[in-house]
Amino acid sequence: MTPDDFRQHGHALIDWIAEYLENIEQYPVASQVQPGDIRAALPPHPPTTVEPFGEVLADLDRVVMPGITHWQHPSFFAYFPGNSSYPAILGELAAAGLGVQGMSWVTSPACTEVETLMMDWMQELLGLPEAFRSTSLAGGGVIHGSASEATLASILAARWRVTGGAINLDGHTSKLVAYATSQSHSSIEKGLRIAGIGTGHLRVVPHDDEFAMRADLFEQMVADDVAAGLTPFWVCCTRGTTSSLAFDPIDTVGVIAHANGMWVHVDAAMSGIAALAPEHRWVNNGLAHADSYCTNPHKWMGVNFDCDLFYTADRAALLGALSILPEYLRSAAAEAGAVIDYRDWQIPLGRRFRALKLWFTIRAGGAADAIEMIRRHVAATQQLAEWVASDPRFQIIAPHPLNLLCVRLIAGDEATDALITAANASGRALFTRTVLDGHVACRVSIGARSTELAHVRAAWALLQSLAG
Amino acid sequence: MTPDDFRQHGHALIDWIAEYLENIEQYPVASQVQPGDIRAALPPHPPTTVEPFGEVLADLDRVVMPGITHWQHPSFFAYFPGNSSYPAILGELAAAGLGVQGMSWVTSPACTEVETLMMDWMQELLGLPEAFRSTSLAGGGVIHGSASEATLASILAARWRVTGGAINLDGHTSKLVAYATSQSHSSIEKGLRIAGIGTGHLRVVPHDDEFAMRADLFEQMVADDVAAGLTPFWVCCTRGTTSSLAFDPIDTVGVIAHANGMWVHVDAAMSGIAALAPEHRWVNNGLAHADSYCTNPHKWMGVNFDCDLFYTADRAALLGALSILPEYLRSAAAEAGAVIDYRDWQIPLGRRFRALKLWFTIRAGGAADAIEMIRRHVAATQQLAEWVASDPRFQIIAPHPLNLLCVRLIAGDEATDALITAANASGRALFTRTVLDGHVACRVSIGARSTELAHVRAAWALLQSLAG
Repeated sequence: MTPDDFRQHGHALIDWIAEYLENIEQYPVASQVQPGDIRAALPPHPPTTVEPFGEVLADLDRVVMPGITHWQHPSFFAYFPGNSSYPAILGELAAAGLGVQGMSWVTSPACTEVETLMMDWMQELLGLPEAFRSTSLAGGGVIHGSASEATLASILAARWRVTGGAINLDGHTSKLVAYATSQSHSSIEKGLRIAGIGTGHLRVVPHDDEFAMRADLFEQMVADDVAAGLTPFWVCCTRGTTSSLAFDPIDTVGVIAHANGMWVHVDAAMSGIAALAPEHRWVNNGLAHADSYCTNPHKWMGVNFDCDLFYTADRAALLGALSILPEYLRSAAAEAGAVIDYRDWQIPLGRRFRALKLWFTIRAGGAADAIEMIRRHVAATQQLAEWVASDPRFQIIAPHPLNLLCVRLIAGDEATDALITAANASGRALFTRTVLDGHVACRVSIGARSTELAHVRAAWALLQSLAG
Repeated sequence: MTPDDFRQHGHALIDWIAEYLENIEQYPVASQVQPGDIRAALPPHPPTTVEPFGEVLADLDRVVMPGITHWQHPSFFAYFPGNSSYPAILGELAAAGLGVQGMSWVTSPACTEVETLMMDWMQELLGLPEAFRSTSLAGGGVIHGSASEATLASILAARWRVTGGAINLDGHTSKLVAYATSQSHSSIEKGLRIAGIGTGHLRVVPHDDEFAMRADLFEQMVADDVAAGLTPFWVCCTRGTTSSLAFDPIDTVGVIAHANGMWVHVDAAMSGIAALAPEHRWVNNGLAHADSYCTNPHKWMGVNFDCDLFYTADRAALLGALSILPEYLRSAAAEAGAVIDYRDWQIPLGRRFRALKLWFTIRAGGAADAIEMIRRHVAATQQLAEWVASDPRFQIIAPHPLNLLCVRLIAGDEATDALITAANASGRALFTRTVLDGHVACRVSIGARSTELAHVRAAWALLQSLAG
C-alpha cells in the first residue's frame, strides 16, 4: 500500500466509522449469527494475491458487521459500558501511526511522560488522594490494559511486601490468604490462581443485604486465619461490583487490614470514573486507606478499550515485584533514577502509546462530556427505577445509586430467565443475566455514550411487553 | 466532537501519519530530550475548557515528536524491529471505531471467529504443525498482547498439567523447577516470579559457543533435580534469543523434556515470522516437540504492536489454568462447547478486535511484503557482516543467520561502549548495547520496514568513523 493509497483508504475508513456510529441504531444490538457463520463467510485459506483494499473495507459490511454485538449501540444495556468517543479513536490512530514502544523511558520519552502527566491529570479530575501522584513521595500511576491486570499487579505487589521480597526467589506462598466477597470480580480468583496462591487461599467474606462486604465478619476471618498461623496479605474492596454495583466499605475494612499488615486494593473499574462529577465523588470514599486503586476510562469516559488507570501509594512494592533488568534494557537515565520505566509497573514488557487517547479525549472536552453523560445515565437509571417500582410484576433487588438496575419478575427465576432471553432475541436491546443471592436477575446497565432516556423508555416498554 | 469534526480531523490525522512515515528520515533516530522536558512543555493541570482539535494535532509536532524515538526510522537498529504498515494501522483504526469487546464469542462473534481464522491462516503461512490449528483435536491459537504474556500463559498451563489441576486450588509450587539459558528473555524470570514459582526454581542451563542451550547439560540438570525430589515442569527453547539470535535445539531438548513429563515452550517472538520465507523455515525446526509456541507479527511482519501469536497443542491445560466462569459471563453457545471464549486463553478478561489488523495486512499483500522485507534485511545483514569482517578493528562475536549482527571492537569493552554511545548520540542511527559471555557488544538489528542496504551502509560508515 502506497502512502497515497493509505490516504485514500484512510479517509474512506474514517468516513465509514462516522457513518457507522451515526447510524448504529439500524443494527440489532446483538449479533444474530450462529457459531461458525462468520468463519464460513471467509476463505478457509489465506489469499495468494494482493486484494484491492476496497474489497477489504467492503467485507467490514458484508462479513464483520453481522457478527458484531454493538457495544456503542444506545440500546446496549449488557455487561458494562465499553463506550468510545471520536477523540479517543483518533488517539488510538495516532498511536498506531507513530508505532513506538514505551517499555522504557528511553525507548520513547514522550510515551512515558505524557502517560505520567495524564495519570496526574486524572488524579486531579477524580479528586483522588495525593499519595497516588507521580510527584508524591512513594506513589504513582500507570495505564494498564485492563482492571484484571491491575488486580494481578496489586496481588503481586502485596505478596512482595508481605514476604519482604523473598517471594521473588523462593515463591513460597502457602501461608498467604486473600479476602473478597462473592460479588467481587472474577479477575480476583484468576489473579490468585496465576500468582500461585490458589483459590483455596481466597476467603469469601459474607456480604450484607446490599451486597457490600461485612467488615465485622472480615475482621473475624482475619483473626481466625492469624490464629491458625496463616498470613492475611491482601483484601479487595470493590467500589461498584459487577453484578449489582455494590460498594464495599473501604474505611472500616482498610483499618482492619492495615492493623494486620495487609494490602488494600480498591477495584473501582466500573464506578470510579463517576467521581468526575462532584456529586458522585462518594464512590471513592475511604480511598486514603488504599494501597492500590483502579478505574477504567474505557468503561464510562469514552476512552476506548484499553485504558485502565492503576494507582498505587507504594510503588516500591510494585517495582519490587515486577522489575527485571537485563543488559539490553539498561539505560543511563533509568540508572540515575531520573525517569520511570513503565515496563516495571506492568505484567508485559511491550506497551503502546495509550496515553494519547486519554490526552486527546481530555483536551477535546472529554471530561465535561463524560460528566454530562454520567449524569444523563444516572438520571435515566433512577427514572427507570421509578417505572419498575410502579409495575407490580417487577421487583428491584439491589440498591441502584448509579447506572445499574437489577430487576426480576415476581413470578420467579424461570420467568425472569425467559424474559431476558426473549428481550435479547428481539435485537432491540441487550441485557445481561446474573444471579444475586440465588435469585436470577436482569441487569440493566445504562452506559453507552449515545443512550438517552428515550432508549431506556423503549427498553422498559420491551421488558413490559414480554413480561407476560 | 461532532461526526463532521471527526471526519475533518480524522482525514487530517491520516494525512499527518502518511507525511510522518514518508519523511521520517528528517528526524534524529533517538529522541534527544532530557528527562522531564516533555512534561515541562505541557500544562501541569488538565484544561478546564474545550481546546480546538487542531491545537491537539499541532501539539503532536510541537510536543510529542521531540520525545519520540522513531521505531519506524530506516536507521533504527536498536532493540528489535517493531515495524508497522499502512494496512495494519487501518486495522487498528477499524477496531477502535467498532469499539467492541471480544472477551467471549457472544460479546461479538466476529471478533472471535476472524481471530481464530487468522491463527489458522498464519499456521499455514508459517508452515507450523497441524496440532496448533483450531480445527485440531487438542490445540489452537490466540492473539496475545505480547510474548511476555504468552510465556506466562505457557508457564501457567504447564503448572496446571503437572499438578493435575491441583495448583488452581492449593497453589503449591515449591517443588516445581523450570529451565532456560541465560540468553532467554527476561519475561521468563518475570513470569516465574508472577506465577509464584520464584527465580530460585529457574535453572540456568549453560549454552554452547553459539549461545544455544546445551541439551546434554539440560538432561543432567533435570536428572539431578528429579533425584533431589523436585519436579521439572517447564523448559523454554528460544528460537532467536534477544541478545544474539541464538537457536536452542528443540528436538533434543524436547525429547528429554517429554521423557520427564515437562512442558516445552518455544519462544520465537523475534525470528519465527521468518518462516514466511520458505528458505528460512528452519527457524521453527523441531516444533513438533512443542507444547506451546509464540511469534510476533508486531516485530517483523508489519502488524503494529500488539499482535503476538500464541499457539498450544494442549488447549485443555491452558483452559484449565485460565478459565473462570462467573454467572454474568455464561452463554448458551459457550456451554454447548460450540464456540471459543478467548478470555479463557489469556491473562486479562477484556480484549480488542486485534485480528482486524492481521486480516487487513494479509489481504493487502502483507505476507508477500514481509517476505520481501525479511529477505532484504537478511541480505543486508550478511553484507554488513562481510564489511565488518574486512575491518581489523572489529570482531563479530555471534552467529548471524538472520537479521542481527553482534559486533565489538578488538580494543575492548570500554572502546565498544564509547562507540555505541557516540553513534547513538549522533542521532543518525540507533544501536543497543548488550553483553555476551562477559563481552560488551553492539547489536545491529536490521528490521525496520523502510531499511534499505543504503541505510545499513551509512550506519557502518558511522561506526567506522567513530571507531578511532
